[in-house]
Amino acid sequence: MKVIALDVHDVRFPTSRRLDGSDAMNPDPDYSAAYVVIRTDTGAEGHGFCFTIGRGNELCTAAIEAYAPLVVGHDLDLADLGEFGRRLGHDSQLRWLGPEKGVVHMAAAALINAAFDLAGRVAGVPVWRLLSDMTPEEIVDLADWRYLTDALRPAEAVDLLKAARSGRAEREATLLSTGYPAYATTPGWLGYTDDKLTRLSREAVEDGFTQIKLKVGGDLDDDIRRMRLAREAVGPDIRIAVDANQRWDVAQAIDWVRALTPYDPWWIEEPTSPDDILGHAAIRAGVRPVRVATGEHVANRVVFKQMLQAEAIDILQLDACRVAGVTENVAILLLAAKYGVPVCPHAGGVGLCEVVQHLSMFDYLAVSGSTEDRVIEYVDHLHEHFTDPVRVREGHYLAPSAPGMSAEIKAESLAEYSYPDGPAWRS
Amino acid sequence: MKVIALDVHDVRFPTSRRLDGSDAMNPDPDYSAAYVVIRTDTGAEGHGFCFTIGRGNELCTAAIEAYAPLVVGHDLDLADLGEFGRRLGHDSQLRWLGPEKGVVHMAAAALINAAFDLAGRVAGVPVWRLLSDMTPEEIVDLADWRYLTDALRPAEAVDLLKAARSGRAEREATLLSTGYPAYATTPGWLGYTDDKLTRLSREAVEDGFTQIKLKVGGDLDDDIRRMRLAREAVGPDIRIAVDANQRWDVAQAIDWVRALTPYDPWWIEEPTSPDDILGHAAIRAGVRPVRVATGEHVANRVVFKQMLQAEAIDILQLDACRVAGVTENVAILLLAAKYGVPVCPHAGGVGLCEVVQHLSMFDYLAVSGSTEDRVIEYVDHLHEHFTDPVRVREGHYLAPSAPGMSAEIKAESLAEYSYPDGPAWRS
Repeated sequence: MKVIALDVHDVRFPTSRRLDGSDAMNPDPDYSAAYVVIRTDTGAEGHGFCFTIGRGNELCTAAIEAYAPLVVGHDLDLADLGEFGRRLGHDSQLRWLGPEKGVVHMAAAALINAAFDLAGRVAGVPVWRLLSDMTPEEIVDLADWRYLTDALRPAEAVDLLKAARSGRAEREATLLSTGYPAYATTPGWLGYTDDKLTRLSREAVEDGFTQIKLKVGGDLDDDIRRMRLAREAVGPDIRIAVDANQRWDVAQAIDWVRALTPYDPWWIEEPTSPDDILGHAAIRAGVRPVRVATGEHVANRVVFKQMLQAEAIDILQLDACRVAGVTENVAILLLAAKYGVPVCPHAGGVGLCEVVQHLSMFDYLAVSGSTEDRVIEYVDHLHEHFTDPVRVREGHYLAPSAPGMSAEIKAESLAEYSYPDGPAWRS
Repeated sequence: MKVIALDVHDVRFPTSRRLDGSDAMNPDPDYSAAYVVIRTDTGAEGHGFCFTIGRGNELCTAAIEAYAPLVVGHDLDLADLGEFGRRLGHDSQLRWLGPEKGVVHMAAAALINAAFDLAGRVAGVPVWRLLSDMTPEEIVDLADWRYLTDALRPAEAVDLLKAARSGRAEREATLLSTGYPAYATTPGWLGYTDDKLTRLSREAVEDGFTQIKLKVGGDLDDDIRRMRLAREAVGPDIRIAVDANQRWDVAQAIDWVRALTPYDPWWIEEPTSPDDILGHAAIRAGVRPVRVATGEHVANRVVFKQMLQAEAIDILQLDACRVAGVTENVAILLLAAKYGVPVCPHAGGVGLCEVVQHLSMFDYLAVSGSTEDRVIEYVDHLHEHFTDPVRVREGHYLAPSAPGMSAEIKAESLAEYSYPDGPAWRS
């Protein structure tokens, strides 16, 4: 199969108009996607994207175009997508712009996920199943092992995957009947009023969620009040995570989280810079028993490796489109399994819920083999723009059945929200 | 003073045609600059750039354009350039694309350095002097202290700068008479023949350099032979640094460096991923007494902070244009001084020698107060394209005297090497 074209779209949704997605660092996001369709000479196509919050989305579309010479006109071997991932990651001139981080890495994510979407469509299966049905050796070969072998060697990873085969059939039955646990971020955006927070928190519990999340980090008194209101609304048995979106320095993080501890926060998410491995370790030591979580802005597998080596996090929050897509996330899931740290993916954005569910379901079936203390973030925005939107019932993601990675945006939405010329932006 | 325009240029030099700049990770770089001129309503202008190795340079020029709404039409207070740096770094939507790393951060470097070039021109002094003549409080206020206070607080930094005032006049006299020590990378590009390596190594010593550098990491037997030849060429008293350009995993780095140890390498540079703080610490413990150096690809001050906290490096190799320019490098110099680690800047690129000399000279006069074990990289490429090229005599950079940051590329070079339409690329 040969790639004949990349169709690239700059798609932006004007979410800042209602303060959906507002937090202490990001007061006015316009949820956006740098979106790509891989077209092949067989007629098969794959869809992928990376997620931004508005300005600069054009840098990610330009970066996807910058990879085109490595993709268009070349063969795409769906049985060796590890090679495809490494081809993008190892181009020396583009690598200089990271390496393996920021705009070029996000663009690689869009392309690599699109290649898996394509592979799923060609195989006629959803990507969670495509991955789970691979042999341990095939799975291990998807990853780029450079820089990982001090923490995990490929042969160890094969052993880990072989051990995880036990109980696979029962887990698949559970997944297909009940789904994968979710938690709700919808109630807690920082721009919402107390009444809206309280109402949405109650509704989340009524909808079957056993965990919600609140944004914090703007003002301590506000956070204490909001945390108290949320706790009163949901009662003692519902987990409430809090999320500071990188707002604090180390000492400030510890003090702030301690002030919220009377209301029993389940985890503190992104307390400080996503680059600060040692800072997270210090915060973790300082806020116990509150757990420390991060990952949506962790640049790549090398940083995650150290977060695990340094025992800096209790929860690993990979993002489907920040690191280099499925191939790098396979490595991250294997590292997390080796260190026994649960993965609870980030999905606050457009399309992130759709794509990342495939990774968690693969993790459950074939890698960690568990949903204990594992939940996928759920926000109820913008799903109507996808051809295969997530289905959440009783606080669980139902396993998608359509072939591919659920990454396709409807043609009419691509047109309506095309930036800057779509109707949604011309008005 | 108000900014009225940004002129942005994509400039690329076809260096891959002669293998200048070739190393184990970057076999065929075309040294390039995403170049910006800040134009103001007073007629004063400032020049800055970030450095890439070819493909993707257009992403950095696009990122400079993406910052334009934060710059053009706004006041630029030359007495508060810390505010300018923080304005670029804190834009929430563009920050999402890093945060503070990769393409958007390199673009910020170009703009921030251009603002300092402008400030130097307006003040009629080179930037090394502009910075050195600031008060400790003014210097400290240039930095963005977010995420640093667990390692260094602003008040401590002020004390450190006050203590460094002692002996300033003598150091300035030394700087003006002798210059700042340099080392030569020119002999050691991986694509050069043994004869060329030997000849250029001897020439470097004859030219007064007391340190040279060899690229390694392609093939161990080749490296041992090249290291032996270089050692024979320069004798026992010249320092030979080796540079692996991120080629290895941790264990491989330790084994490889040990194999070179009989030829007394001074430092091993970039042994592994620039994100791998714990990996560098492990390598440092494993290769003693060989020193560990890194920095040209370290994304930002938060990663440098941890390199110092973890005692992962012996030498800190900041880059003038990878982190957010002068303002972030002031923070990095202060951190290095606090931890007592010498700074030996990266300058292998186009224009990096010109710009970074100002930072080392500032460090010598006002921060660390020392040139002991400190050298600026020197490569003899492409200086002819600058209006104020570096002057290196007897292995020392002579202090530039022209106002600004020596960042201006000649108009005829901008035209000749403009990509893709300049004459150099049309042929």
